[in-house]
Amino acid sequence: MSQLPAAASDDVQARVEQICQYARHAARALAAAPRQVKDAALHAMADALVGASARIVQANAADLDRGRETGMKTSLLDRLALDHERIEGIAAALRELAALPDPVGEVVRGQTLPNGLRLRQTRVPMGVVGMIYEARPNVTVDAAGLAIKSGNAVVLRGGSAAASSNEAIVAVLGEALEAQGLPAGLVQSIDAHGRPGAVALMRARGLVDVLIPRGGADLIQTVVRESQVPVIETGVGNCHIYVDASADLEAVVPIVLNAKTQRTGVCNAAETLLVHRELAGELLPRLLAALGESGVTIHADEETARAAAALPGLQLEPATEADWETEYLSLDLAVKLVGSCEEAIEHIRTYSSGHTEVILSQDTAAVRSFTAELGPVAAAVIVNASSRFTDGGQLGLGAEIGISTQKLHARGPMGLAELTTTTWIVEGDGHIRP
Amino acid sequence: MSQLPAAASDDVQARVEQICQYARHAARALAAAPRQVKDAALHAMADALVGASARIVQANAADLDRGRETGMKTSLLDRLALDHERIEGIAAALRELAALPDPVGEVVRGQTLPNGLRLRQTRVPMGVVGMIYEARPNVTVDAAGLAIKSGNAVVLRGGSAAASSNEAIVAVLGEALEAQGLPAGLVQSIDAHGRPGAVALMRARGLVDVLIPRGGADLIQTVVRESQVPVIETGVGNCHIYVDASADLEAVVPIVLNAKTQRTGVCNAAETLLVHRELAGELLPRLLAALGESGVTIHADEETARAAAALPGLQLEPATEADWETEYLSLDLAVKLVGSCEEAIEHIRTYSSGHTEVILSQDTAAVRSFTAELGPVAAAVIVNASSRFTDGGQLGLGAEIGISTQKLHARGPMGLAELTTTTWIVEGDGHIRP
Repeated sequence: MSQLPAAASDDVQARVEQICQYARHAARALAAAPRQVKDAALHAMADALVGASARIVQANAADLDRGRETGMKTSLLDRLALDHERIEGIAAALRELAALPDPVGEVVRGQTLPNGLRLRQTRVPMGVVGMIYEARPNVTVDAAGLAIKSGNAVVLRGGSAAASSNEAIVAVLGEALEAQGLPAGLVQSIDAHGRPGAVALMRARGLVDVLIPRGGADLIQTVVRESQVPVIETGVGNCHIYVDASADLEAVVPIVLNAKTQRTGVCNAAETLLVHRELAGELLPRLLAALGESGVTIHADEETARAAAALPGLQLEPATEADWETEYLSLDLAVKLVGSCEEAIEHIRTYSSGHTEVILSQDTAAVRSFTAELGPVAAAVIVNASSRFTDGGQLGLGAEIGISTQKLHARGPMGLAELTTTTWIVEGDGHIRP
Repeated sequence: MSQLPAAASDDVQARVEQICQYARHAARALAAAPRQVKDAALHAMADALVGASARIVQANAADLDRGRETGMKTSLLDRLALDHERIEGIAAALRELAALPDPVGEVVRGQTLPNGLRLRQTRVPMGVVGMIYEARPNVTVDAAGLAIKSGNAVVLRGGSAAASSNEAIVAVLGEALEAQGLPAGLVQSIDAHGRPGAVALMRARGLVDVLIPRGGADLIQTVVRESQVPVIETGVGNCHIYVDASADLEAVVPIVLNAKTQRTGVCNAAETLLVHRELAGELLPRLLAALGESGVTIHADEETARAAAALPGLQLEPATEADWETEYLSLDLAVKLVGSCEEAIEHIRTYSSGHTEVILSQDTAAVRSFTAELGPVAAAVIVNASSRFTDGGQLGLGAEIGISTQKLHARGPMGLAELTTTTWIVEGDGHIRP
């Protein structure tokens, strides 16, 4: 995505805008639809995916063949692969969405004013949601399901690696919607228009209400920089764990291992560990040894390197400035000793990507200052638990379309409510302004 | 603002970024400050303005002289003028802000999960708010006060017509903050850097958290199009009033007069009137006569023109396509007859600027369909009351920095809460993700 054409051709721009117009029109059918209409559509979409699983698996096989030919890594091939069981899982996620409360119509604030005006600020759909994302075809279904449940239409631009799978999935979903009497325009793909199509989507101001990029840092930054449509920036997580001198030492090793190694390619994995100097003698070697046994390479500052010198077989590299800035997304961890909670806060303030920052501490003053100082810096501040909890499912949102690292509109995991906007409904009895 | 330089010179860019960095640093002093610190600062700012009113009036006189020399209209000169009494009024607004609840620390959502994790989503300051605005120097003080109360720093770019007044005001506010032990960097101006300074502010991504343009449509569209910093679009209001066949006829004339004539230069004034055809015989002539007596020029569709033909002295012009699109901001009103509530909704859907739409009706089905269909379209839908109620003060927000017509983050009047973001605070007891 980093070498995008400066503009789409007029032809592609016009075709993408036509798709967006169709989505806009389709969204009207859903905006005021009662919950049962949306939930029935989600169940129909789930049924259709399972029913068409042979067709989808066949399309997926074409993507996998192309992937193997172009030398795609085994781990990526695995993420791309669909079989009947995975399709059942994807369909189950749609049924779970159907079971969630309807975000539309929720009254966020309301009151009757002294002059008798009755106010309520109510959630309404955005209209048209654009998604630009990479690889995994399950994102196609998740995005479609979240959009439908929140009363929106979605225009999808998936990764080219999953083009055949996505095409089949979007066709199946469109058929399911039409069978329910809803327009297929609610879920559309612009994959056929390649990168110029993505550029056209970013230029479709007034037709797309919000554009959500989901994928690597390069994709996200390109969209944030180039888009004329309002964007929600997602996902880069240079997450820190600070182990305070007062930490519950029994809890430290399990939490750090969980945060670093449970899944490495995700934005809520830990990337830098800051340890209070008082723990250098006893806890630090134990922690480094445990990380080493899990296959983690330590990028150590000088003091950490000295503490680690006695540990046999530990993968150790000297940390450079780049290490403090890097979201490894791999079994690598930068480690640094600090002299105080304040020093940890300063380091994090400098290098945070605004995602998740963790403190392990039993000291209320340290916890208070960490949360107060870093709350404005990060979307989530976690106390005595793993960074891996910054996730829509884990935080009880029920579903997630991405994790916002920006400050406007949504911050942290974005669920159904974040795909809505609000309107003020004001009811009077002939009121005029004095 | 429409002919902006493509980029600020490196020098201006560097100086504006330095100002933003200073603001960023200053904001840290306020982010975790308790309410009494912020309220004391607001009172000190109010006292300082009143105390320095002679100095401010003198600076303002220089702006007024320049305005007269360049042929500024009397109405604009009046809006620009400051005297001791107006400064007292501006200071009083700061004291009213101090009396409002602190938006920072408010818990928006929270729960204890089944696994024992304690969650709360809490309001925190944005950091640095940028404002680009026109003419009136009271906006300088309002923006500074709203920023301080919400724990933010503000970087101001005011209209050149008020440059001397704004310079004096910002200096006085800075001195007041410093006397309170707070950094003057909390309230800064980049007026000295002219238009290249405004461009530099729009390019200061990562240093400015949100940029709010406030002024005419041209200013707002330029900022929305050019800014690389997240923007909240404000204020264009092509507001409609639909008079349904079932309307309470006694209420119609006072509401329409109030919406059109109470103040004409504001975004919540009515610009188009849609009247149900059943009311063409009796109500319409009465309504048009009342508007005519108030000096309103009617831009009429053919049917309205026929109904108005018998009215002596009415200023009447045939409506063209441009009239349906225009925010007049003057004593002009476009008038069209429609055959149904659905037809009114379609017209509004086509021409709405997303601000405020009004229905006057006693029919619950019409009201329900108007609010359901147009809620996603407009920031406010008003039933049986004047469009002039779309205002932070009128809707009980206590203060207002602008009226958002976009769907992301804030929609409608923006008060203190809209100048904050949220963070998730997650507290565990050694929790790891299973």
